[in-house]
Amino acid sequence: MLKIGLLGCGRIGQVHARSIASIDGATVTAVADAFATAAQSLAAGTGAKVLDSDALICSPDVDAVVIGTPTDTHYDLIHQAAAAGKAIFCEKPVDMSADRIRDCIKVVETAGVPFMTAFNRRFDPNFANIHARIAAGEIGDVELVTILSRDPTPPPISYIKGSGGLFRDMMIHDLDMARFLMGEEPTTVYAVGSALVDPAIGDAGDVDTAAVTLTTASGKICQISNSRRATYGYDQRVEVHGSRGLLRAENMLENTVEVADQNGFRKAPALNFFLERYEAAYRAEMTYFAAQIQAGDAPKPGIIDGLRAQILADAAAQSLAEGVPIQV
Amino acid sequence: MLKIGLLGCGRIGQVHARSIASIDGATVTAVADAFATAAQSLAAGTGAKVLDSDALICSPDVDAVVIGTPTDTHYDLIHQAAAAGKAIFCEKPVDMSADRIRDCIKVVETAGVPFMTAFNRRFDPNFANIHARIAAGEIGDVELVTILSRDPTPPPISYIKGSGGLFRDMMIHDLDMARFLMGEEPTTVYAVGSALVDPAIGDAGDVDTAAVTLTTASGKICQISNSRRATYGYDQRVEVHGSRGLLRAENMLENTVEVADQNGFRKAPALNFFLERYEAAYRAEMTYFAAQIQAGDAPKPGIIDGLRAQILADAAAQSLAEGVPIQV
Amino acid sequence: MLKIGLLGCGRIGQVHARSIASIDGATVTAVADAFATAAQSLAAGTGAKVLDSDALICSPDVDAVVIGTPTDTHYDLIHQAAAAGKAIFCEKPVDMSADRIRDCIKVVETAGVPFMTAFNRRFDPNFANIHARIAAGEIGDVELVTILSRDPTPPPISYIKGSGGLFRDMMIHDLDMARFLMGEEPTTVYAVGSALVDPAIGDAGDVDTAAVTLTTASGKICQISNSRRATYGYDQRVEVHGSRGLLRAENMLENTVEVADQNGFRKAPALNFFLERYEAAYRAEMTYFAAQIQAGDAPKPGIIDGLRAQILADAAAQSLAEGVPIQV
Amino acid sequence: MLKIGLLGCGRIGQVHARSIASIDGATVTAVADAFATAAQSLAAGTGAKVLDSDALICSPDVDAVVIGTPTDTHYDLIHQAAAAGKAIFCEKPVDMSADRIRDCIKVVETAGVPFMTAFNRRFDPNFANIHARIAAGEIGDVELVTILSRDPTPPPISYIKGSGGLFRDMMIHDLDMARFLMGEEPTTVYAVGSALVDPAIGDAGDVDTAAVTLTTASGKICQISNSRRATYGYDQRVEVHGSRGLLRAENMLENTVEVADQNGFRKAPALNFFLERYEAAYRAEMTYFAAQIQAGDAPKPGIIDGLRAQILADAAAQSLAEGVPIQV
Repeated sequence: MLKIGLLGCGRIGQVHARSIASIDGATVTAVADAFATAAQSLAAGTGAKVLDSDALICSPDVDAVVIGTPTDTHYDLIHQAAAAGKAIFCEKPVDMSADRIRDCIKVVETAGVPFMTAFNRRFDPNFANIHARIAAGEIGDVELVTILSRDPTPPPISYIKGSGGLFRDMMIHDLDMARFLMGEEPTTVYAVGSALVDPAIGDAGDVDTAAVTLTTASGKICQISNSRRATYGYDQRVEVHGSRGLLRAENMLENTVEVADQNGFRKAPALNFFLERYEAAYRAEMTYFAAQIQAGDAPKPGIIDGLRAQILADAAAQSLAEGVPIQV
Repeated sequence: MLKIGLLGCGRIGQVHARSIASIDGATVTAVADAFATAAQSLAAGTGAKVLDSDALICSPDVDAVVIGTPTDTHYDLIHQAAAAGKAIFCEKPVDMSADRIRDCIKVVETAGVPFMTAFNRRFDPNFANIHARIAAGEIGDVELVTILSRDPTPPPISYIKGSGGLFRDMMIHDLDMARFLMGEEPTTVYAVGSALVDPAIGDAGDVDTAAVTLTTASGKICQISNSRRATYGYDQRVEVHGSRGLLRAENMLENTVEVADQNGFRKAPALNFFLERYEAAYRAEMTYFAAQIQAGDAPKPGIIDGLRAQILADAAAQSLAEGVPIQV
Repeated sequence: MLKIGLLGCGRIGQVHARSIASIDGATVTAVADAFATAAQSLAAGTGAKVLDSDALICSPDVDAVVIGTPTDTHYDLIHQAAAAGKAIFCEKPVDMSADRIRDCIKVVETAGVPFMTAFNRRFDPNFANIHARIAAGEIGDVELVTILSRDPTPPPISYIKGSGGLFRDMMIHDLDMARFLMGEEPTTVYAVGSALVDPAIGDAGDVDTAAVTLTTASGKICQISNSRRATYGYDQRVEVHGSRGLLRAENMLENTVEVADQNGFRKAPALNFFLERYEAAYRAEMTYFAAQIQAGDAPKPGIIDGLRAQILADAAAQSLAEGVPIQV
Repeated sequence: MLKIGLLGCGRIGQVHARSIASIDGATVTAVADAFATAAQSLAAGTGAKVLDSDALICSPDVDAVVIGTPTDTHYDLIHQAAAAGKAIFCEKPVDMSADRIRDCIKVVETAGVPFMTAFNRRFDPNFANIHARIAAGEIGDVELVTILSRDPTPPPISYIKGSGGLFRDMMIHDLDMARFLMGEEPTTVYAVGSALVDPAIGDAGDVDTAAVTLTTASGKICQISNSRRATYGYDQRVEVHGSRGLLRAENMLENTVEVADQNGFRKAPALNFFLERYEAAYRAEMTYFAAQIQAGDAPKPGIIDGLRAQILADAAAQSLAEGVPIQV
């Protein structure tokens, strides 16, 4: 039984708690949150103890920590957990600064603790299926990757201001997906972007509509586009053009019902809420993490993947600012 | 060059004239119609002579006749054309009376002339594809056939009154399709029906909504349903469940465009007009007819197929009237 | 908190236990099973007591019983539970005999206890969506209902022999769905059937491929077809043709991925296992049951719906045996 | 009756001849080709005269010329036809050099003759439908355009060498489509590309896999990707993300048939041959051209659209060569 301590009892912490409850070989033994009531509320339905984060990390009843606290606290918690020899599951981004992630890599490697960066989309059954079929050679060599990702509605301006910008906050998932599907590191990054959804986002120094082009040394190409608004639900599509065929994942719709009338044939909107859209992915990533730790195997994506995605996001932001492609 | 005489220059005659114009080895040499202006108008764009039907049938410039006149004239024209030794392409139904079709079979067989009953849907690229793949064994043995067929709007009551009823006028296409796809003769026919679209259709002694069940000696089953009204276009679907898989043909839509908004994902309506929906089928059946005649091979479906479909339609009408399944 | 006693701890009992665990206002307080280990195993993960069925039904810690035992035990358990004043949730079929269901109705009505027949498909999000939209008038009057239902593989012959036959065991779900979607009682039932999947099923006196036609007093028509085998997964489709449009539910596929190559565009098979396919339905029906009981409202479908579906299944079996439509 | 002279009787000339034959108000009166047999063969089925190109352009029996000759002859033919006061329909590209197109614009404007550049895809029923619905405001403001365009197989290396490169030969269609759908001129062009399909294409100095990003002054973004190979047919997709919704056109498949078996649900490949895929577009563009000329209205896209697409293709080639975005 893997004993897990939960750092952060907000929305994502609750998701992870539910996932762990559904896993046979894992259990939440302790929880911590800056807001005591959040921690108490999450612990209530379980046998978990409410501790402060220092005590949780040092507890002998904790084998692994799940870090779901605000991004700016990750750095210290990773340092503490590594020092305490705990396995670490950390929400993305590991940190807003690539240099600080490099610091974390050092302490994690020195301590020799397992570390998983929570790029949950790799565990989405659709995208994981595409990845597995590429690996099995079903479409030959990967040549062109197209990722279309649109949020239903923009977050509040207050969130935007502290988010690190669209590339680091939203597109980072797609940048990781690009690496996951291309199987080769991007070497150039070119970004364009506009504030078309809400001028206030532009006033805040960010964009809400953006496109990035990545290339690799061997000539693979990836195009990503993002919008902070989609009237038809949470739009999450991926396609991979290979030498022998095409693999693509369509959106998950609310149901399978179609109505036909004089206006044509109409299906339901896409699932709108990210927790519902990626429900299976959240469960699968935690199941995988627990299994890897118990088997003594290193989980993937690791902390290095967290760093590489951050470097790509930084390069995209720089490309947008300077108007030229950036070498990485 | 196959020289074709066109009997009937109405809507369907014009369709056949256009098809023949697109075939390299065939040409319309003569046309006839009770309305002289219809014949003249159709001949105008071509080098065809306008004749009366007797003269057309006897003309040495005519190798084959295409009969697209009103149903009650088919019987005499078939007799004349057979006597004149012409190949015959005849619109469905061959006749409203199975006994009179049997008479026609006798004269056609005695004369030894080729005869094709124009069940155009067998030549639709989608349904023909299903038939070919069944024949190739792709889904193993045929077990269950489902045919959904709905007209966009009911014809005028005046037409209904002289139509022979839904089973002989509309469902006869589906009954032929059932025979085509099952590859075995139905032995029982059970029909139900209602006038739900327009009570005036009920007052005229007909139904506008109907369902038929067919079974064969080996136990294959076919379900057909018809409606005289579909708000979303001309609904023409077929599916065949076999021991190794399923084959199904979806509707042909007006275009491939999809719009997505808060109401979901919407495609275009189905093609609404039968001449457009079955444009390729009309061309293919005439191309096939011309090729078979020129090669000296018997065209299919033959006059016997016209008879068998009519017998099934008669049985369906009787089943509806009597409330019991009919053996055929 | 609704205190639920679980009668039967087999596969379906476990499904219901998981559903109840996910419901905020309900809990399993006691479980019973003829096999003590099954009951102990299910109780282990919860605070539920293991009791024998008599004790469970009489327990003051039980407000409602969920009956998931073999069909031939339902009759006695319903009588006992009604006498004990417990709300009853009973798996379908209520009983194999319509007369015995009528007996159950009497005791349930006399006792005045709430009773829900577990036709789970009514709670499938897709079919429930169709029902709600019909009720909202989205497609006008219902005219033609088409239900295609195919199991992935036939059950063992030993199961077939005790199943009551395809109509009572498998099609009963579709017969209930027909009533649910037509909103009017069928008055005639006509059935055909064959043993095409496995001759041993025919030797056992049953069919594995069948079709039923239902009609109502107002002229609505429903066609159902069943097969005990589908190579492409668990095939569960429904469509409703109404005066203003068509509503249809497509299969739920394993994922949203499509591969394209020289053979065309290929999507995943349909979900294959009924517990996975109807996972959401099982959870929704139990959530609904608990909510209705706690609100003091009568749950639906009730015991009368269990009776009516059974009467239709009996009529289908009689129709197949006699070769004629049966009035109900 | 619009009298049309056909310059060039190769594959595309024959397509235009067939289109004109199907138009009521237009006829081919004269044809010319450097290969006399090609001209004679095309004229054979019609009443058209075979002339040399000088005579054809000056013929009083010619109101409009259709230029379907090799690209390097367009310049002189346009000059001659403009001087002769003929309406001009010219295949794309107008010329390989933007400067020479500017010369052509001068003579066309000076002569005041109507000129249409044959960007046939604007007349594809699917893409035209998207354009019309954008114009009608159905999806609000255009924000992100995604164009995926893949040829079934690469052309011979000999063709590649004289083609002007992928951007001028293949992507020029997509660059015009981008302008058509964005409704605003691109101001920056960034291109990447590789030779992944065939190294010989790289050896010839070209790429076979490429992606372009366009931006406009108001912040609209367009991503285009091309490959010279697609195993699943001729891949031609477009989608437009707007402030109120998404419009997208899927591929046209060979038929509507789907097979289901243990491998899932499989549809037919995409139409493979460009003349078949764009058959309707070729007919529609010529019908439109004839109608505009007869009505005295200027046809669109005009010669300026030919220039602007060429400028974008030149910019893309330059961007690829220099590794930076190009301002246009």
